[in-house]
Order: sequence, then C-alpha cells, then structure tokens
Amino acid sequence: MSETLKEIGEPATKEAKQALVVFTPSGRRGRFPVGTPVLKAARSLGVDIDSVCGGRGICGRCQIQPEIGDFAKHGISSRAENVSPGNEVEARYAKKRGMKADRRLSCQSLVQGDLVVDVPADSQVHKQVVRKRAEVRDIELDPAMRLHYVEVEEPDMHNPTGDLERLIAALKSQWSLTDLECDLRTLQGLQQALRKGEWKVTVAVHRGQVITAIWPGFQGNAYGMAVDVGSTTIAAHLCDLQTGEVLASSGVMNPQIRFGEDLMSRVSYVMMNPGGDRAMTAAVRDALNTLTEAVAEEAGIDRTLILNATFVGNPIMHHLLLGMDPTELGGAPFALAANSGMTLWATELELNINQDGRVYVLPCIAGHVGADTAGVILSEQPHLAEDITLVVDVGTNAEIVLGNKQRLLACSSPTGPAFEGAQISCGQRAAPGAIERVRIDPETLEPRFKVIGSDLWSDEPGFAAETKKTGVTGVCGSGIIEVLAEMFLAGLLLTDGTINGEMAAKTPRIQPDGRTFSYLLHEGDGKGDGEPELRITQNDVRAIQLGKAALYAGIRLLMDRLGVEQVERIMLAGAFGSHIDVKYAMILGMIPDCPLEKVHSAGNAAGTGARIALLNQKTRDDIESVVKKVEKIETAVEAKFQEHFVQAMGIPHTTAVFPHLAEAVELPAPSVKAAPEGDEDGGGRRRRRRRS
Amino acid sequence: MSETLKEIGEPATKEAKQALVVFTPSGRRGRFPVGTPVLKAARSLGVDIDSVCGGRGICGRCQIQPEIGDFAKHGISSRAENVSPGNEVEARYAKKRGMKADRRLSCQSLVQGDLVVDVPADSQVHKQVVRKRAEVRDIELDPAMRLHYVEVEEPDMHNPTGDLERLIAALKSQWSLTDLECDLRTLQGLQQALRKGEWKVTVAVHRGQVITAIWPGFQGNAYGMAVDVGSTTIAAHLCDLQTGEVLASSGVMNPQIRFGEDLMSRVSYVMMNPGGDRAMTAAVRDALNTLTEAVAEEAGIDRTLILNATFVGNPIMHHLLLGMDPTELGGAPFALAANSGMTLWATELELNINQDGRVYVLPCIAGHVGADTAGVILSEQPHLAEDITLVVDVGTNAEIVLGNKQRLLACSSPTGPAFEGAQISCGQRAAPGAIERVRIDPETLEPRFKVIGSDLWSDEPGFAAETKKTGVTGVCGSGIIEVLAEMFLAGLLLTDGTINGEMAAKTPRIQPDGRTFSYLLHEGDGKGDGEPELRITQNDVRAIQLGKAALYAGIRLLMDRLGVEQVERIMLAGAFGSHIDVKYAMILGMIPDCPLEKVHSAGNAAGTGARIALLNQKTRDDIESVVKKVEKIETAVEAKFQEHFVQAMGIPHTTAVFPHLAEAVELPAPSVKAAPEGDEDGGGRRRRRRRS
Repeated sequence: MSETLKEIGEPATKEAKQALVVFTPSGRRGRFPVGTPVLKAARSLGVDIDSVCGGRGICGRCQIQPEIGDFAKHGISSRAENVSPGNEVEARYAKKRGMKADRRLSCQSLVQGDLVVDVPADSQVHKQVVRKRAEVRDIELDPAMRLHYVEVEEPDMHNPTGDLERLIAALKSQWSLTDLECDLRTLQGLQQALRKGEWKVTVAVHRGQVITAIWPGFQGNAYGMAVDVGSTTIAAHLCDLQTGEVLASSGVMNPQIRFGEDLMSRVSYVMMNPGGDRAMTAAVRDALNTLTEAVAEEAGIDRTLILNATFVGNPIMHHLLLGMDPTELGGAPFALAANSGMTLWATELELNINQDGRVYVLPCIAGHVGADTAGVILSEQPHLAEDITLVVDVGTNAEIVLGNKQRLLACSSPTGPAFEGAQISCGQRAAPGAIERVRIDPETLEPRFKVIGSDLWSDEPGFAAETKKTGVTGVCGSGIIEVLAEMFLAGLLLTDGTINGEMAAKTPRIQPDGRTFSYLLHEGDGKGDGEPELRITQNDVRAIQLGKAALYAGIRLLMDRLGVEQVERIMLAGAFGSHIDVKYAMILGMIPDCPLEKVHSAGNAAGTGARIALLNQKTRDDIESVVKKVEKIETAVEAKFQEHFVQAMGIPHTTAVFPHLAEAVELPAPSVKAAPEGDEDGGGRRRRRRRS
Repeated sequence: MSETLKEIGEPATKEAKQALVVFTPSGRRGRFPVGTPVLKAARSLGVDIDSVCGGRGICGRCQIQPEIGDFAKHGISSRAENVSPGNEVEARYAKKRGMKADRRLSCQSLVQGDLVVDVPADSQVHKQVVRKRAEVRDIELDPAMRLHYVEVEEPDMHNPTGDLERLIAALKSQWSLTDLECDLRTLQGLQQALRKGEWKVTVAVHRGQVITAIWPGFQGNAYGMAVDVGSTTIAAHLCDLQTGEVLASSGVMNPQIRFGEDLMSRVSYVMMNPGGDRAMTAAVRDALNTLTEAVAEEAGIDRTLILNATFVGNPIMHHLLLGMDPTELGGAPFALAANSGMTLWATELELNINQDGRVYVLPCIAGHVGADTAGVILSEQPHLAEDITLVVDVGTNAEIVLGNKQRLLACSSPTGPAFEGAQISCGQRAAPGAIERVRIDPETLEPRFKVIGSDLWSDEPGFAAETKKTGVTGVCGSGIIEVLAEMFLAGLLLTDGTINGEMAAKTPRIQPDGRTFSYLLHEGDGKGDGEPELRITQNDVRAIQLGKAALYAGIRLLMDRLGVEQVERIMLAGAFGSHIDVKYAMILGMIPDCPLEKVHSAGNAAGTGARIALLNQKTRDDIESVVKKVEKIETAVEAKFQEHFVQAMGIPHTTAVFPHLAEAVELPAPSVKAAPEGDEDGGGRRRRRRRS
C-alpha cells in the first residue's frame, strides 16, 4: 500500500464501521462509513464523476464499475458483497435506459466494505474528447452550458419568496451554484415548468451564471453548434454537450456570394449600396438558420435543445454576421469595430436555436486576421508549443501564425485566388472531374494524373471508363501545385518561373504561345463543347508565383521578426491545406524548408477551434488572452515585405536554400532564362485581396 | 485657520509657487502649484464637481464662483487676480450657452494665488433634488445612466485594436471606468459615430458597467422615465438625469380595464382565455409607448434620449408588464414568479425609448404586496425612521407597512372598492361634480358640501352658478369618509354603524328605507335624467365599515407582531390618501389613534419611489436589501385577523380608544342599537379582493 497517497474521508466514529475505497484511474482513496453512497465518496475525494440528476438515479451519468478481486497494489480485497446490491431505482433505470451488466449507478450503490471502483471515461464530467490527429491534444469536455436537475421548494405564503428565488436557492444548495441570474424569457415560462414538473425541473445554466432554459422534470440532452462562417461556405458541427460527440455536420454555400464572389467585392458592394451590409447580414443569418435546421434534422433532435453556438470567421464575415458595417475593413488602417470575443444571445443574431441560447463569437486578431485565425490557434496550439511552429491557413488571403510558447506573431498575406483555381486558364474549384494529382515522367516528359472521383491514374486501365461520367474538366488548386512542381523537377520550368521553350525540342507538349510557351497537360476530346484541352500557360505560372511569393514573404517577415532562420513544425490549415501534398508545396516554395515529417495538414482548423470553444468554456478565456498577446504584423506597410516578395518569386526561391527538402527530393540546379519578359504580369502590379 | 481641516494637494516643489485653495460649502482645502486648473484642484480634494466633457470647456457643468474678499475664517485673502482671466474656450461657451457674470468654468480657470471657491449646488454631481414635503429627505442625484464625453485614439494598423477596445481604453484613462462592456446594437453604430465625431464621442454608461449609447461629438442631455403602472391609471414622470428635474408628467388609463375593471377580474380573464395574459401585456406596453410619446412631446425632447426607466406596480401589474402569467397570484399560496428587482433592456418590454435603454423594475415583497409598495418604502423611508411609522397605501387592497429602522413588517388587506366610490349607492370616481367635502350641522343636522371643480361650499352664494356645468353627480371616496364621519359626530350614525332611525324625529333627512334608514345628502333636481338624488344608505355604511375594518385589522395585526400598542407617525399614500382629511379617516377608525400632526399624506408615494430609483442608483440596492428583510404577513391565513376585523367594525372602533383624536375632536359616547340586523351584509361574507 502506497504511503504517498493521501487518505481522506469521513471522520472515523466509534459507531460507524469504516471501509477503504480506492477509485481508479485517479488513484484517489479514502475511508468512509459503511452505507456511504459511492457517488458521495467520490465527490468528497474530488473524483471526477458526472451527474445531471444530482444522485437521484435518473440520468445514469454516474455509472461506475466495482472491481472485484484482491488488489495488492491498493492493499484491498475488493469483494462483490462490499457494495450494496442493486435497488429498485437502479433496476428502473436499467430497464428504461439499459445498462451494462458490470456497471452500477454510483449514486445508488452503497459502500459495504473495502472497494476498488473504476470510473469509466464516459462517466467523467471532464472527459477527454479524442481528436484523430496525433500531433494535437484532446479536448477536455467542459461546456459553457450545463444541465442541472433540481428539486425546488414549494411556495409558502408565510415566507413569500418568488418561484425564481426558490429555484436559485435550490441550485445553490443542490449544485453549489451561486449568484445566478435568469433571462426574462426563461422566467416567463418558469412557473408553468415548476408546476408541470411537480417542483422538479431541469435547468440549463450558462457559464455557471445565468439560467437560460428550464424544462419540467428530467431533461438530459443539451446540444451545441460550432460554426465556421467562410466567405464561400458556411460549415456547422452539431455536438452533444454531454459527450462532446459530433452528431451531425453540414455546410451550405454562403449566400453572400450573390453580392460578390470575394470579400473585397462584398465590401465594395456595401460601399456602393446603402443598406448593402444589412442585406448581407440578413443573407448569412438566413443561411445559418437553414444550416441549423439541417443539422438538427440530421441528428434527429429538437433545435430548441441547441443551447449554445460558437462562431469563427474572417473579419469581414465576423462583422457581417454581427450586423456591423465592414466598410472600415476595406481600406487602411483596416479598423475592426471590436476585436474581443463576444458572448451574445442567439436572438441578437436572429439564430433559431433555443430562444435563450447563448452564442460565443471568437475574438479577431487584426483587420486582416480574424476569428477564424483565433480558431486555428485554438486548434493547433502554437502558443503551447516548444518548437517554432508555423501555422498557415491558405485562401485568397493567407493567415500566417508563427511562434511558440514564448512569442506568437500573426499576419495576413494577399495570396490571391490562384490557389483555388481562379485566374488559372485551366483552373477550377475542387469538384469531380478536376485534376488533383499530377506526375510528369522526367524522361518522356509525359504527364499522368488523377481526377477527383476516381482512384486511378490516367495511365491505368479503366481510367476512361471510371471518369466517363465526370470527364476531365479542369485542374483544381492541388493539381496546379503538383503540375508546376513536377514541371520544375522535370526541367520544364526554370527557377525564375519561365516555361522552358528549349524543351520544345524534347517533347511536343511544350508549345509556343505567342512570345512564351505552354505545357499541354491534357488534350481533351477535341470538340469545343466536350472535354476541354488543358494546358499550363506562362500566365498560369505567374499567377501561382505571385500567390506563393506573397505567402512565403509573409512567413519570412514573421521569421525575421521572431529572429529565426528555420521553422521546426508546419501546420497547413483550411480546405486547400488539407488537399495539397506538402512536398509539392515546399518544392514550389510556398512554405519554408522544414523536415517533411514535421509538416502536417490540420484540416478545417478554424472550425475545430469553434468546436473546442464550444466544448470547453475555459478555452474561450484562453484564446482571448492569447489573442491579446499575439504580435500583429501588417504586411501592407512593411517595406521588407516587397523585398521578400521579389526574392520569393523564384522556384522554390531565388536565394533561400531547402536542405531538408533536398534530402527528400532531387531538386534541379538553379537555372534562369537569359532575358526577362517585359510583357508578363510580374511582381510589380499588386493589390490587396481578401480570402474568398 | 482651523487646524482640524486637513490640508492636502500637490506636493510642494522648489520651483512651483503654491497657493491655498478652499472650496465651499464643503470646506475642503489644499495647496496647489500656481497654474493648476480649479477643476483639477477640486477633484484631487474629492470636492464634488460635475463634468460631462472631462474638462474641455464644452458641457458647462463644472461652473464655480470665485469668492472675492478677505476670509478670516479661512485665513485667506481671495483676490480677483488670484484666478486666471477667462480664456477663449470659456468665452465661446458663455456666448453659445450663456453663463452668469460671477460664474466661471472651473476647468478653464487656473489658480493664480490663494482662493476661496464656491461650488454652487447645480454644479455638483451628487446634487440634492429637493422634495416639497418637509417630512421626507431630499434625493441625492446619482443616476444609473451617466454621460461621458471622451476622445478616442485613432486606429493604428501597427497596433490593430478594435474601435471598441480603444473607446474602452479612453473611458478608462479619461473617466476611470473599468471592465466596461458594450451592447451589440450600440457597437453596430460605433464606427460611424467615432468618424462622424472625429474621434470625439459622448457615451452613455449604465451603472458604470455597460456602454449603452453613443453619439458623435458632445451630447449633454440624458433623460429618464419613472412609471407607476396602476391597475386603473398608468402615470409617468420624465426626468432630466443631469438635474433631477421633472420635465413632464402624464397619465393614461390602463387599457387592461377592457379585460376587467379590477385585478381579480383580469386574473380570471387570463384563467378563462388562453393567451389573455399576452393580450393584456401587449395592451399595457402599448399604453406605455403612448405615454412615452406624450411625455417626450410635452418636454420637447427626442425619445431616443430617454435612456433609463423605472417601474413600480402591484404584483399583477408587475407580472403582466413583464410578460409573466399572473394566474398563480389569483389563489393561495399567491406565488410570485420572481420577487427580486430586475434590470432589463427596454426592448425586452418593447418600450420605445433609446434602443439600448435600460429598465429597472422594483422588487415585489409578497404575492399581495408589490413593487408599488417597494416604491412607497423608498419614498417614505420607514426603514430609516426612529419612530414607529405606519405607511398605508389604500386602494381596493390596502398595502400596509409598519415599523422603523429596527424592524419592518408588511401586509396587504382586502379593503374592497368602497373607498373608491364603488359599491356605494351614490358613489362615483373622483371627477368634477363629485362631492368631496361634507359638513353636517350638529344642531340642524343639515349638510353642506363642496364638489370637485368648485371652491365654494354648497350653502355659499354663487355655488349653483359655479357648479351648473358639472352638476352634483355623486360622492367620491373622500366625500363618503367625511359624510359618514360627520353623521357619526352628529349622532346620526351609531357606534355599530347603524343609521339612527330615532333621529328621523329631529330631521326629515333621516328616512326609513325598508327595515333600515338612510340620510338624504342632496335632493337632486327631481328629474330622472338630471341631477340625481344622493343618499347614504345602511348598505353604503356597511360597505365602508367592511373596508375600514379590513384596513384597521391589517394594521392591528402588524402592530401585534411588532409588539406595539401605538404608532408614532402615519403616512397615507396613494390618490385616496392624498385627498382624504386624515381627521375624518381617524374618526371612522380607518387608522389607529395617533397625534393628528403626525399624520401626513404622501401623495403618489409609489411613483415617487420609482423616481427615486431612477435618480439614485444606490437606492435600487437599498430597496432590494430592505425588501428582503421586511417581515411579510399573509392576512388571509391569520386567525387573529378575523378577530381584529370584527372588533374594527365599530366606529371608530368597538373596543380601541382614540385619546389623541379625542383631544382634537369631540367624539360621541359609544352607542349601540338594541337589536342587530340579520339581513345586512355583515362581516361574515368576505372574499379576497385586489386593489384596482
């Protein structure tokens, strides 16, 4: 028996026989009088066991597993008879809701002798919600909205307190909740709920402070919604606030697209159309309600049980969601109306969840770095890392975060829409039929590719049949990255980004195109209305070069500020980041050199950040304080940015070296074409673009 | 020079010449370097000087008066040249807004030498708002909603904080306001206001916590509304929150009357008509908006400058105003939905004041003792009294408060509608043409009276001409009290309330009326459709007896509980209390014996309480804590109440003595008629009635 573990519990009395109880996995132990409910013993030791009904055998959340046997390491002989047999309450619960044979309700089980009790993960209040990726921490469940079942004293005309005041008193005595307030709308239904529930009700309490909903009797389900308001799509996850589980996910197009494809065109719309901001606010809120309906239906739940929602979005989406005119974000100094996180009533956003549901909108960081980046930070936790960590969320604008637990820097860089297939002659959005993978044979210079919707390479048998339905319609962002990188590796593309016309001698796919050359990727079917011819033109290369140079320059600027020459870990966030092969991104010089095994795709990290803020209320305070400490860099006014940008136009870079990449890939020697082309869209013509 | 007054101020330095400044009336004094603004000197000494603009010479609230001369008691020779001459800013203010010749703006006046400075009452933040009645304390101005003019830093893209965060920082540095929040709706207009005002704005801050409104530039006006929601009439006072002055008062009929004349009939309506509570809530809120328009128009102000409103009302009005079903208040145990005071958004009550205006609803005390009684306590302050103080608010129910600074008790007693002229054969509401004063000659037994609308007695010349327009149409509450009391003094009414038939021998005005008698008060014009005949019947007397016995019994019950046999001070609140002659009320035994000079009419004390809560935020906390400590007595279930009630049926009382009253009035000896009348509506048939 370990002497280091502290033994506490009920004080020994002459009358009461004491028993030793050890809880696993925590190892907490104490002596308790025979007859003590196991739940009570656990609580007095600070063992984390959930309960919504407060020990009345209704909710079933406090299940434990008595471990029977001799446990030398605990010094306990834990026998079956050392816990009371199941009573009627427990039998009723098991019959109604089902319970595993070896499980017991800890509130109904009494200590009868020495006992080892296991608390399964699903019975813990602060359970870990597991994330699939190995490189990130799990989420500790601690939702802002909690349910409490409570028995309220009936009114007494000799001591005429209000029903609300008696409810508050009951929540204090039964749940140790103090200084509670109550929403007026909830109060309007309070008297009926208390009487219908015969003075037993379940209440939802927001952040331990405000009673936001009330139901007669026992109500064990509470849901939350984590929403990423992107400029193109709005995505929502419906979560069970008791388990942390994602019950449904859905996405809709952002209907603001009809006001403008990208963010800047939406801001222009507002500037030119008085009331345009209100129209866009109404549009996004409508879409949110459609989405709410969709996830509630998918999960088969009543949307009034959605009690909490969290939102992330870039600054313009953030402002439009909140009904704030985004005009100021359209020009320097890019002033946010507010940058702090906000807790609001759902009704303030006209969101059709529970009428007193609460909404939390994550904080913005700067005029170009929004609540979406705050979500990315919450998901990827660079502020907790030992390693110098780079997190990049690539869109029309790229948001870049760099640093570790000591310092964290952030900026936004205007990468333009090329990575999403726009401004590329053969570009298209990622959809079935789009080329997403490309390989070029270094000898024959012949390409092969994969399209979305098929697992076959284009040179494999059956490819034509499998892609007959979709056809080969264009090249999406990841396909563009790969074809350019492969062209570079094959010598078709020079360091300065010129398509090498000299290679026309070696392959008919290099073809003159005015004063420049292009690479024929796919012949098409030769009919004008059928499968198109897909070729990579010099202009396509220039568009990607502009984007990747802007991204690299932004990263490099942060590295300068942080005083580092190397990053130790890279996370690529966003839809684009999830689909590109990081090796090709590095070959093109989108990201700086780094061991390839240290580069990960983070998926929709912004949306994950919203989910973390939904499931764990403390992370809201965390992110607010992290965001305050982030050093914000405005690339638009940094002289050094232009310099870095010009240097970064080369592939992978005009001057920087990529030693880790060179270990994995055989990079061609630096090459340049003799004369620069004056007629191309070079690095000079630039304007700020927003992520769309 | 007094050595007891502490001298503080800026620390003396070798360079700066120091001057002694004394502020009156506070007597605070200190030494300051020559050149210090007088406002700054005052603030550093804690002298109470107002300022909205923060010392920029815009608001004119910091005016002071330099006192010129030799002040031996201060040891100062205060010369004209010891304060700097008026500068341009001051001249501009004086030209634009006007300023008395001897006044100066303290923010623009610099100390040049020893000085005596008077701070006039209207320049104090915490000015006293004078109440007309000598027996109550003045109100110290300290409104929940305050205006602050502030200069905000412009956005800087190198330090990209939100406009809100910079506003909050400015309010912290310029006004020492910390931990401020901001309403979303206010935030939605923030950016525009800041730019329109060129980074100078005025904000309204609620209770030092929430920014609730914002205006570009300087805005010096803020208004509030104190509302008494009575079951018959709703009355509002519009107040200037900077001066405490009442700018406009108005009243409307409570439109809920169409659902039921008195409170119980309205509760019945709700019970019998699903949704009836919502209809009544909508009706009262509509009326409130009509009233808001009316007072804003009367005062000539924009209703969006009404930033705060306070409400009192009985429990049923309180619940209906708040949108809470009053059904539970219709029967035992008379459970309130909530009894605490509530701070709400005006929009939650659909009140058309400023969109982010705040509303405070005073707390209720018990199921029959509402926020109106809380208002009465705030106005009459029995909880601060040394004397045993009785406060009575008479309506269909009477609310009774008894006690002093040690203990305070409250109850409600079902007095019925007789005091308001209902259930009285000749009764009517107080309106022109109603008899309100009555005298009966003890010799001739002839009556004379006054009607509302004329100052003449009915036996004075010109009475007929002056009352020709209104006629003599009935007897209002105060008239009923007087005629019964005069009948008693003249021997026409016996101690047990019987109209003395034996007196028919002495006057033709005593006339048989079935088995009882009546007293002919006014002959009328003899035409059925003209001026009616007005007589006091035995049933009329019984109705008043029931009401006054209930009132007295409630008071007596509280006296028992408090353990006193005498009250030392009486306040009569409410419209009825304002109009009755307290002597007659005591002759009838409505209130217990007390020196007549200690009985006062408090007017609409509930409404005054609302005004106090509007003008002084601390009183809200005060009343919440007083209300918690009040001992609540439920008369309906007190056995002793019935006993007291029966004893109190006599005039003035069957057993109690009235020594103080007897000193002022010659009371007849106790008398009884031989046989009780079995056919009359005696004390047995009773039901709880609500004030209407």
